[in-house]
Amino acid sequence: MTIPQFERIALIGIGLIGSSIAREVKELGLTGDLVISTRSTETLKRAEALQLGDRYTSSAAEAVKDADLVIVSVPVGASEAVAQQIAANLKRGAIVTDVGSTKASVIAQMAPHMPDHVHFIPGHPLAGTEKSGPDAGFTGLFRDRWCIFTPLPNTDQAALDKLKAFWTALGSRIDEMDPEHHDKVLAIVSHLPHIIAYNIVGTADDLETVTESEVIKYSASGFRDFTRLAASDPTMWRDVCLHNKDAILEMLARFSEDLAYLQRAIRWGEGDKLFELFTRTRAIRRSIIQAGQDVDAPDFGRHALDTKK
Amino acid sequence: MTIPQFERIALIGIGLIGSSIAREVKELGLTGDLVISTRSTETLKRAEALQLGDRYTSSAAEAVKDADLVIVSVPVGASEAVAQQIAANLKRGAIVTDVGSTKASVIAQMAPHMPDHVHFIPGHPLAGTEKSGPDAGFTGLFRDRWCIFTPLPNTDQAALDKLKAFWTALGSRIDEMDPEHHDKVLAIVSHLPHIIAYNIVGTADDLETVTESEVIKYSASGFRDFTRLAASDPTMWRDVCLHNKDAILEMLARFSEDLAYLQRAIRWGEGDKLFELFTRTRAIRRSIIQAGQDVDAPDFGRHALDTKK
Ligand SMILES: NC(=O)c1ccc[n+]([C@@H]2O[C@H](COP(=O)([O-])OP(=O)(O)OC[C@H]3O[C@@H](n4cnc5c(N)ncnc54)[C@H](OP(=O)(O)O)[C@@H]3O)[C@@H](O)[C@H]2O)c1
Ligand SMILES: NC(=O)c1ccc[n+]([C@@H]2O[C@H](COP(=O)([O-])OP(=O)(O)OC[C@H]3O[C@@H](n4cnc5c(N)ncnc54)[C@H](OP(=O)(O)O)[C@@H]3O)[C@@H](O)[C@H]2O)c1
Repeated sequence: MTIPQFERIALIGIGLIGSSIAREVKELGLTGDLVISTRSTETLKRAEALQLGDRYTSSAAEAVKDADLVIVSVPVGASEAVAQQIAANLKRGAIVTDVGSTKASVIAQMAPHMPDHVHFIPGHPLAGTEKSGPDAGFTGLFRDRWCIFTPLPNTDQAALDKLKAFWTALGSRIDEMDPEHHDKVLAIVSHLPHIIAYNIVGTADDLETVTESEVIKYSASGFRDFTRLAASDPTMWRDVCLHNKDAILEMLARFSEDLAYLQRAIRWGEGDKLFELFTRTRAIRRSIIQAGQDVDAPDFGRHALDTKK
Repeated sequence: MTIPQFERIALIGIGLIGSSIAREVKELGLTGDLVISTRSTETLKRAEALQLGDRYTSSAAEAVKDADLVIVSVPVGASEAVAQQIAANLKRGAIVTDVGSTKASVIAQMAPHMPDHVHFIPGHPLAGTEKSGPDAGFTGLFRDRWCIFTPLPNTDQAALDKLKAFWTALGSRIDEMDPEHHDKVLAIVSHLPHIIAYNIVGTADDLETVTESEVIKYSASGFRDFTRLAASDPTMWRDVCLHNKDAILEMLARFSEDLAYLQRAIRWGEGDKLFELFTRTRAIRRSIIQAGQDVDAPDFGRHALDTKK
């Protein structure tokens, strides 16, 4: 695939995802003019200090002028407001995309505002860490990770291909599905894990019989794994919960039902049921490692870092 | 603290924990005679091939003869059987300890069989990975991790001090508490996280609307974190569930109650409640990192390993 070129790229939002895109675009030289826009002057100044772009503005409307590619990387709940701000200034033939973690809601928020003369193509790179803000980004974040597009009917194939080539240049593997299916898949592989992690950390925080300092001291025996996801950005995750409600509630119901079964097996000492589940789940980890979606090192390879100190 | 010496050490069970102890004992030269015993001839042969000890036997009774320190590292449900096998052959004045993840049950299983002339001191090193068997062990596993003792009333202080010195030599930090409290603490910091991880992986495996191959492909968006814990040894975790039932059921009830609250907040679009919880949980992660109980690198530092490929 040829590496795509854009005369001007505008990034709306310059947090973990936006700034990772900015770093890649610079490194790969995908445009001669990278315009960065973010809501607060504080974040904008930080982006400038980090030299993430060529120009900086706190006006999203200003940023998108004459841009051939516009990438919106803000919490999903802010999608409609951004769409409203940029709509009138979008260049004829521009590609407008986003990186939001939910898709049906983003489409409902943005599509009605998009003029007919632009290509609005919703997307979602499945890559991230628990950190946020412009300092958190890095090149390589998208490497070997999937980027899912949920194109609307009648999307221009050439525009879609160009956007795919862009993400391929960033190292992503490309997939396509309809927005409803995306939201269901993400509810189980991403949203439920985060909600469960937040919940268990909250439960531990509230106990009376075990102190918080005990939880912290002894966290290496399993608990600490959950605290990473539970340290993710609260705004982003509040918005995800509010904007993928149905799929999340469906997955939560399944999870709770299964947990009740497990709880009962524990109460009644049904070791065989426990053993059956605990055996079955190992296979999935093996498949994930084979698929190149996790490292094979024990304990995520933490030990190597632990002992480097 | 002086490094303790034992004329003979016997290890009953040579999996992840037993073999990590064996490697440390050899490296630190804590005994002149390390006897290794395990149930199956297959594992025993593997231990021998790895040169983990000085002598090897499939009889636990044989192994403990004349040993000054006996460490039992088997699934907690096997504790009573091992205690029965070794009781008659224990040397006068020997220290007998274990590494089991639950303590009240191990004490109930082992203490009645221990002759008066030995020092039985239950212990639990809070260190491990998701791997098992003699190949999984390594030196450094216990470094900076806590080892909790739950001594019985009237435990000989000199024997306890010697055992603490042994674990300190292995790099552990030492703590002491009563067995019931240990079991409550571990229920929240270790047992609940593992059960929840097994459960969510089970839920994902059972879905009809999202395929298993989709779960695997897109797992890097959060789900993969849980698969590590859910790949832990099924026998060990079945036994933990059966032998710390009350504390686990208590923590599960709290967790489910909190999850119902969260679920309701999602259903009714109560963003403020979600935001409050998602903010509160960040502080715990910071404290864990400050306490040296996890690495500070984003995504557990996986990215460094990912890109080494
Ligand atoms: N983090 C992940 O793991 C991940 C992975 C894939 C996709 N995503 C999606 O990517 C998007 C951005 O996430 P991120 O991790 O990059 O977030 P982030 O690091 O917190 O950055 C958020 C950016 O959005 C701006 N912003 C916040 N609230 C806004 C509002 N109400 N109106 C306009 N701009 C606003 C912020 O501007 P100021 O700082 O100037 O306020 C900042 O530039 C989200 O939709 C998220 O769902 C995230
Ligand atoms: N893994 C962890 O993260 C961790 C952390 C702290 C404490 N612990 C505790 O440490 C103990 C050992 O765990 P591990 O991870 O080392 O397990 P492991 O790697 O699976 O090794 C288990 C050892 O116990 C033996 N064994 C298994 N079933 C037995 C039975 N019914 N009777 C006698 N011996 C039996 C095995 O012998 P064969 O292979 O010969 O059958 C093997 O030598 C458990 O009590 C566990 O709760 C584990």
